[in-house]
Amino acid sequence: MRPVFVYKADPQRGRQWAEIFRREAPEIDFRLWPEVGDAADVRFLAAWEPPADLATRFPNLQLLLSTGAGVDQFDFAVLPPDLPVVRMVEPGIVQGMVEYVTHAVLDLHRDMPAYRRAQQQRQWQVIPVRPASERRIGVLGLGSLGHAVLDRLVSFGFDCAGWSRSRHDVAGVRCHAGADELDGFLARSEILVCLLPLTDATRGFLNAALFAKLPRGASLVHVGRGPHLVTHDLLQALDEGHLAEAVLDVTDPEPLPPDHALWPHPRVRLTPHIASMTQPQTAARVAIDNLRRFERGETLIGLVDRTRGY
Amino acid sequence: MRPVFVYKADPQRGRQWAEIFRREAPEIDFRLWPEVGDAADVRFLAAWEPPADLATRFPNLQLLLSTGAGVDQFDFAVLPPDLPVVRMVEPGIVQGMVEYVTHAVLDLHRDMPAYRRAQQQRQWQVIPVRPASERRIGVLGLGSLGHAVLDRLVSFGFDCAGWSRSRHDVAGVRCHAGADELDGFLARSEILVCLLPLTDATRGFLNAALFAKLPRGASLVHVGRGPHLVTHDLLQALDEGHLAEAVLDVTDPEPLPPDHALWPHPRVRLTPHIASMTQPQTAARVAIDNLRRFERGETLIGLVDRTRGY
Repeated sequence: MRPVFVYKADPQRGRQWAEIFRREAPEIDFRLWPEVGDAADVRFLAAWEPPADLATRFPNLQLLLSTGAGVDQFDFAVLPPDLPVVRMVEPGIVQGMVEYVTHAVLDLHRDMPAYRRAQQQRQWQVIPVRPASERRIGVLGLGSLGHAVLDRLVSFGFDCAGWSRSRHDVAGVRCHAGADELDGFLARSEILVCLLPLTDATRGFLNAALFAKLPRGASLVHVGRGPHLVTHDLLQALDEGHLAEAVLDVTDPEPLPPDHALWPHPRVRLTPHIASMTQPQTAARVAIDNLRRFERGETLIGLVDRTRGY
Repeated sequence: MRPVFVYKADPQRGRQWAEIFRREAPEIDFRLWPEVGDAADVRFLAAWEPPADLATRFPNLQLLLSTGAGVDQFDFAVLPPDLPVVRMVEPGIVQGMVEYVTHAVLDLHRDMPAYRRAQQQRQWQVIPVRPASERRIGVLGLGSLGHAVLDRLVSFGFDCAGWSRSRHDVAGVRCHAGADELDGFLARSEILVCLLPLTDATRGFLNAALFAKLPRGASLVHVGRGPHLVTHDLLQALDEGHLAEAVLDVTDPEPLPPDHALWPHPRVRLTPHIASMTQPQTAARVAIDNLRRFERGETLIGLVDRTRGY
């Protein structure tokens, strides 16, 4: 029989995956959750949130694919320990993130928040502009997204630095590594972009102590995960004037409740976790590629190292 | 005696020019308007707005330099007919324009106006995103700014086209030329960027007839000159829903009066003619380069063809 693959995420996107699998991977038996048929037949599962009883429900599961770039929504404690897990590594995710972060950095660099406020006041007032070469950008997290974002920001001539737990090398970027080099990185970052993975080590990473190490008047672009950010500390840093602006694509919780203090804050711009979205077309093809690699015993794209958590 | 050069534009920038001339071009006698000394000695004038009596006031003037990228603020009728005029062709102008237009295009492409309105309503609502490859951008005007802007937009993967009076060639861009090819260009432009020079032929170019040829739901990014745009026609096209959004960096008049209908319009974003500003450092060096070229009888950078008006 054909290997059975189950898709368990947004049903509308699932129907687009089904169409692509039908056309491009007829050797795979595609099933859209909850219509999975005999669960014992299921060998592959793509999910945003796997079922809590995954281990018992799908006893013959061989591979779990996240439909997103991260796997922090997975509870590894309840997953079979030797089940391979892959993240979605897909060009649409990278492209969307590059677009979003470039927009946010240019928005801050060119004082667009202040110009939008001036328009409300009907004020025609020029703010002196600094060359990009004098604008210091810092990117937290140097995975594939961090690399792609920095490549694009470098092409605008920004003075870019990066920080990661381990040593990286990005052309035209001063790369900092590890706890010892974090403070120096923060001290120079006028616009801080968070692209960290969410792990136990990075939960609450964006807090009052970190903000205090940024130069006065710095701004934050947060495109990681909601729980990286201690919201109360951000609001305090904004209200004290130590931070100038914040652009948040992720919050904790999501969706953000209507009575949350972030919504009406004049120095905060919120978007509903849309910085980077998998494109169903390309994502389905990446999944097909990984299933075929698995069947041939080849290296999987985006295989998660559970000890690191990403 | 040393050749006398007069600077007549923003005095603060003038002092920065003076410092650079003192250090880097000591062979030139730099004077800051209105302290010009004996007007008969003046051979070179850099100005945003030349004095109305220029021909009689500076009888020995040999070269007029615009401190801006355009020369539409010059009244050629009152200038000596054989006086050479150069526009400012300076990397800071190009860089600023690339930043501004990239920001505006990404703002529209990623539905940021709608997300800002949603934030005001405290609504967490995702708008489906289209890949850049399916977003059709059209740039009016293929001078050095148009070329630079298109190069950057192509790097994001947008589906780009350009239009100019004469034939141009830009890698990755469908270039249209002349009146015959204008309608086809407009029909495909979802985001229209105006970078035309202001001449008698382009005054009022952005009008109701042109807007009607854009696809329904198109948006305008206007970074040319205020008089390109028939403001009443824009407001009508926005209010009828034919156009979705407008980003205007230039208006007519400037500054825009506080009671003007553009200020409070929910689908208009205004900035006070800041898309691209000459950087005093690089601009002064470009001027020095042109003065030396003139003295050596070499080709001038940015020499204006008065029959074209740019």
